[in-house]
Amino acid sequence: MKRTSVTMADGRELIYFDERDDAVRATVDQRELPPPPPPAQLRFDALTDEWVAVAAHRQGRPLLPSTAECPLCPSTEQFQTEVPADDYDVVVFENRFPSFSGESGRCEVVCFSPDHDASFRELPVSRVRTLLSVLADRTAELSALGGVEQVFCFENRGVEIGVTLHHPHGQIYGYPYVTPVTRRYLDAARRHRDLGTGTNLYADLLAAERSSGERVVAANEFWTAFVPYAARWPYEIHIAPNRQVPDLAALTETELDAGAPLWSEVARRLDGLFDLPMPYVAGWHQAPVRTDRELGYLHLRIFSSRRAPGKLKYLAGSESSMGAWVNDIAPEQAAAALRAVNL
Amino acid sequence: MKRTSVTMADGRELIYFDERDDAVRATVDQRELPPPPPPAQLRFDALTDEWVAVAAHRQGRPLLPSTAECPLCPSTEQFQTEVPADDYDVVVFENRFPSFSGESGRCEVVCFSPDHDASFRELPVSRVRTLLSVLADRTAELSALGGVEQVFCFENRGVEIGVTLHHPHGQIYGYPYVTPVTRRYLDAARRHRDLGTGTNLYADLLAAERSSGERVVAANEFWTAFVPYAARWPYEIHIAPNRQVPDLAALTETELDAGAPLWSEVARRLDGLFDLPMPYVAGWHQAPVRTDRELGYLHLRIFSSRRAPGKLKYLAGSESSMGAWVNDIAPEQAAAALRAVNL
Repeated sequence: MKRTSVTMADGRELIYFDERDDAVRATVDQRELPPPPPPAQLRFDALTDEWVAVAAHRQGRPLLPSTAECPLCPSTEQFQTEVPADDYDVVVFENRFPSFSGESGRCEVVCFSPDHDASFRELPVSRVRTLLSVLADRTAELSALGGVEQVFCFENRGVEIGVTLHHPHGQIYGYPYVTPVTRRYLDAARRHRDLGTGTNLYADLLAAERSSGERVVAANEFWTAFVPYAARWPYEIHIAPNRQVPDLAALTETELDAGAPLWSEVARRLDGLFDLPMPYVAGWHQAPVRTDRELGYLHLRIFSSRRAPGKLKYLAGSESSMGAWVNDIAPEQAAAALRAVNL
Repeated sequence: MKRTSVTMADGRELIYFDERDDAVRATVDQRELPPPPPPAQLRFDALTDEWVAVAAHRQGRPLLPSTAECPLCPSTEQFQTEVPADDYDVVVFENRFPSFSGESGRCEVVCFSPDHDASFRELPVSRVRTLLSVLADRTAELSALGGVEQVFCFENRGVEIGVTLHHPHGQIYGYPYVTPVTRRYLDAARRHRDLGTGTNLYADLLAAERSSGERVVAANEFWTAFVPYAARWPYEIHIAPNRQVPDLAALTETELDAGAPLWSEVARRLDGLFDLPMPYVAGWHQAPVRTDRELGYLHLRIFSSRRAPGKLKYLAGSESSMGAWVNDIAPEQAAAALRAVNL
């Protein structure tokens, strides 16, 4: 893999990750762009002990532009996009409308296909493998930034989930704080370690899932995909390495090799459930950068809000106001349905 | 107000709350109904230290039935609904597809208008006043049930937020546990009390909002409506009594009288923002039934996902996976816009 970092017209960084080692990336971004917006304001919510970012500049970001105006496609002579080159394998660049930037974090966009109409599920496994290397690279690099406390790599898929750009892409957030969900996990993991046998909470849970097998969806020598016992969403899947590591950057090449086909398989099983593209969020849960590294356990959590072909689960009053979840699909039933999909 | 409790065809309870003291409620539910479904299963999520309900029977519940088949309209000779009578003021009944039931809680539906096409915003203030009394009644009664640890009264409004029945209605959940959001608030409030001046966290925050006035939307002698400093949603409003009380059942008649016009005003300001019905969740945050009563502080939290006429805020990767919120509207700007609405 060849890595070429260039500077965009407004000073943002863009990095090409090419599968061919002889790729040349000399095209210059010649657009006239306004300077990047000011960083979001971080506000502390005393009622919940959590940070909220207020990013008023994001209201102006584009909403579902047509293919001809897609900012994530390669550039053409007629239309210059965020990516100066006329083709790419995987490209990463700083978000033009970031939620976190400057001294308080960083937001990046990851385009994993130049094809506007592609989807993650259709990528060759070799491209998924490249993408895993890219996410490991970004995790290591963002972890080294002074303002970043946690790195989150994720993909939002489908207009049902609020996607504002159709072109297949992921995002990377370098948060200036340890996120609320991760803090809750760390609190539980610390209690488990201190009161119990000194073991890792997620490792113990994964061992139990592997031993029971009831909710396992797919597995290989290095990874396990399963529906968690207390799944919140109709279709929710964890993909975790069998060895405890804090983040993507800590995986071996062998583990990365084995992770790509499993991730691809789970994505295809998900879309095969109703023979419909499923709206989903797929996000890599990683340990914080500076604290509690040994309590963390890397895993990808994919969940879909689709509970039936014509029906979505919405986060209504109970979930969104009280954090009290009701799941209409039994996790064992979800796992069996995912296993039964013909690939 | 006259209160008449009757039994539905499948054994569920239904209560008429009539504004006229001479109302007679003798009509009997003569439908043939299957027995109520089994209670949901409560599963403990060790990774987050939270309970999740699995209620597989809810998949079959009706989705947006037409007016002619609405189960919340009064009954007619042609179509018998959940409400046997041919008219009502406010009626409450046990949910036919409950998330919590039996030994582990209770779910109720609250119909606050017999008019299928009405909305909360259009109710006369006298009906909002009746509704407040009904919610106080339900809070007291559900709090007395052995399996209930917290009572939550809420309204989901709009298909954008996942409403499955158009007929205007609210819901009441009697949870068998203290909900995650309330637990987080209580943890913060306990720390504030123990490390600080011994005062109530919410009371101190409310006093600061009243003193600054920058984010206050409306107020009267007994209540204050404001946008919180660290609002998560584009338009989010708290309505709180100026006196600290744990729940609706603890309000005086005078406070209930003063609360109705303010709640109504805020609902009208919200719909006036873009001259469009706003999707929203409006939920009464109340102290737990048995514990930490003195740390609680009753307030109604209303939030809308609409950030502009054609745009909704979705809970995508950052919010739904990491609990890390990004709000595109500054709370001061939201408060000013709400104040500026012509009523």
